[in-house]
Amino acid sequence: MSLPIAERMSRIGTETAFAVSLEAAELAGQGKKIYPFHLGDINIITPANVIDAAVAAIKKGKTGYCPTAGIPELREALARDIGAARKMKFKAENVSIQPGGKPTISKFILVAMNPGDKVLYPNPGYPIYESQIDFNGGIGVPYGYKEGKDGFILDMEAIRKGIRAGAKILLYNNYHNPTGASSTRGEMEELARLAVKNDLSVLADEAYFDIRYGGEPMSIASFPGMAERTIILYTFSKKFAMTGWRLGAAVGPAKFIEQISKINVNHESCSNHFIQYGALAGLQGSNEEPDRIVAALRERRDELVKRLNEIPGIRCFKPEATFYLFPNVTGAMKSKGISDVEEFRKRCLHETGVSFCTRRHFGRPLPGETEEYVRFAYSGIEMAQIKEGLEKLAKFLA
Amino acid sequence: MSLPIAERMSRIGTETAFAVSLEAAELAGQGKKIYPFHLGDINIITPANVIDAAVAAIKKGKTGYCPTAGIPELREALARDIGAARKMKFKAENVSIQPGGKPTISKFILVAMNPGDKVLYPNPGYPIYESQIDFNGGIGVPYGYKEGKDGFILDMEAIRKGIRAGAKILLYNNYHNPTGASSTRGEMEELARLAVKNDLSVLADEAYFDIRYGGEPMSIASFPGMAERTIILYTFSKKFAMTGWRLGAAVGPAKFIEQISKINVNHESCSNHFIQYGALAGLQGSNEEPDRIVAALRERRDELVKRLNEIPGIRCFKPEATFYLFPNVTGAMKSKGISDVEEFRKRCLHETGVSFCTRRHFGRPLPGETEEYVRFAYSGIEMAQIKEGLEKLAKFLA
Repeated sequence: MSLPIAERMSRIGTETAFAVSLEAAELAGQGKKIYPFHLGDINIITPANVIDAAVAAIKKGKTGYCPTAGIPELREALARDIGAARKMKFKAENVSIQPGGKPTISKFILVAMNPGDKVLYPNPGYPIYESQIDFNGGIGVPYGYKEGKDGFILDMEAIRKGIRAGAKILLYNNYHNPTGASSTRGEMEELARLAVKNDLSVLADEAYFDIRYGGEPMSIASFPGMAERTIILYTFSKKFAMTGWRLGAAVGPAKFIEQISKINVNHESCSNHFIQYGALAGLQGSNEEPDRIVAALRERRDELVKRLNEIPGIRCFKPEATFYLFPNVTGAMKSKGISDVEEFRKRCLHETGVSFCTRRHFGRPLPGETEEYVRFAYSGIEMAQIKEGLEKLAKFLA
Repeated sequence: MSLPIAERMSRIGTETAFAVSLEAAELAGQGKKIYPFHLGDINIITPANVIDAAVAAIKKGKTGYCPTAGIPELREALARDIGAARKMKFKAENVSIQPGGKPTISKFILVAMNPGDKVLYPNPGYPIYESQIDFNGGIGVPYGYKEGKDGFILDMEAIRKGIRAGAKILLYNNYHNPTGASSTRGEMEELARLAVKNDLSVLADEAYFDIRYGGEPMSIASFPGMAERTIILYTFSKKFAMTGWRLGAAVGPAKFIEQISKINVNHESCSNHFIQYGALAGLQGSNEEPDRIVAALRERRDELVKRLNEIPGIRCFKPEATFYLFPNVTGAMKSKGISDVEEFRKRCLHETGVSFCTRRHFGRPLPGETEEYVRFAYSGIEMAQIKEGLEKLAKFLA
């Protein structure tokens, strides 16, 4: 057989949420009205100052290569911005610009993890963690989230158990996709204490750091002893509604960031040159536009949470961050006599057009899971559509 | 020690040419006039139709995610374009859009190569081949180029020897960086015959396919039995002077391309969305602008080759493609009493401001090399500067 495929490709995962998109798109093609809650894309326009600065940079000829770790002005501005928001100190050398937030996941794993290393990662969680641990020969050690009083809380016992089993690397995603969970100060302190005590290397995926509806922002990197062992994943995608522009950064100790930049040279050479001037304008501009984005998302969250909780058999927290909800639908499934959450999803999609993901799209299910969850993203759907879709869903599940 | 670095990072290489850039920039900062022949960047503006279409796409809101393998319109247009230029047939499913030409190198290696596999690669050659083979646990089997009558020719015996030693993967870069070599039809036929007979998987790095000054273009993928075993590396960087935009593609059999797109999902999600509309306009536009770029480069080539050959102890071919020259400087080094080619480079840079790379920047030297070479890139320097720089160089080496 020509072009045989290497063994490692049997270990790579994907974002199965894209399959839900395809399914929804197919139905839409057949004329069905779809209410898209399945993807974390943003249907809000990028702020004008970002667009203008990027276009001006093209016109100024910023169309050739730039340094592999990014233009110095952006690295400096981002170091200041990330530092100020987290009460930390960073310099340009602590920042490696990336073509999106996501590349920091695979690059962190390549630089930090040897084959056979055990890596703690959230499950349910962003599926690329699991995929990249497996792909690069690591051993994933999942930890879950449990329903607390006001929101999801870390299964700290699973983390402790993972550390006792030898895990030396921790992937931590506060503010969390898919649950929307924010750690309390106490939870984060305890996690930081464990990380320092056991000399863990930590990836702090802070993709949703700026999508918060209340409370003071917290980064685990800012806790005592953590700065030296933590790499922050930053992205311009959410705060500036720039998902399709593909720009983000890895931020942390210079000696580790240098290694990440070596992978930049090997993979993509550099991130797009002129877009970095757009991002710089975003950082230097007023917070009015990012605030407007968060305000729009907050309205959607409030409406969606209220309507979900009005449906019998659905229980939904009101998260203080991200644009995701992770309602417990165990009761609703029972009422409908459906035992499989993917069947539940498909039934809802076909009967009502309401399209969402399920727990299955966020990592391999863990033994002992009894409750069923689905994920609603509200970043890509207008208020009127939220109302209309949820009315149909409520009727179907009544 | 916090954040220990994984073992594999001791096996990653870099583009040491960037170090030459830094050295030149430092001297420039001290007020020295620099003639930049060291980097393959392009100092020609991107065609206006590409810029306009990209900006229009931003304004139309093409700022969210797009499919991981690229927008369907661009995949289709590129399939047609690449097929037509190579007398082959491709469909959208044969194309995976990438954030640059370079990502196809690492992704091809990840999909095709198992650890321990032997991989034939050109040396001198683009240094990322060697780096990515080593990084991903392969065994690099270098093959060189020899001076022929009118240009560099493949060391076919080294390739045959590599195949006998068990190499099953071939990286082939026609039109070649750094030598500028173009294979004759006979050479390419022989290479294709070897590949088919020995069931090799082939990466055809055709980054410079559209930077040609004469002759009919040829792709090894178009030879009998080759389409099914070849992945073409395509880039928008050179033809459309889009180096800093970062857009390219991997093109080949659909089942392999699917695997590459799985890595897209894991690494960067997708390439920038609106830039793909710019590239589409480039493909659909007239060839006037790309022709203008090649015409400008041709003038520079002719001037530079003439002037280099006028310097005693320098011997330089006039390549029919790429924007690189790889003059033999053995004689000039002897005249100056310099035995180390890097010392030669530094002396030329400090004495004359003429900045170029050497053979050392293009892979680990092979045993038995007796001749000394340097690389001149003429894509980033104007005619007037070429003349001025070469006058100084000629005087220094007289």
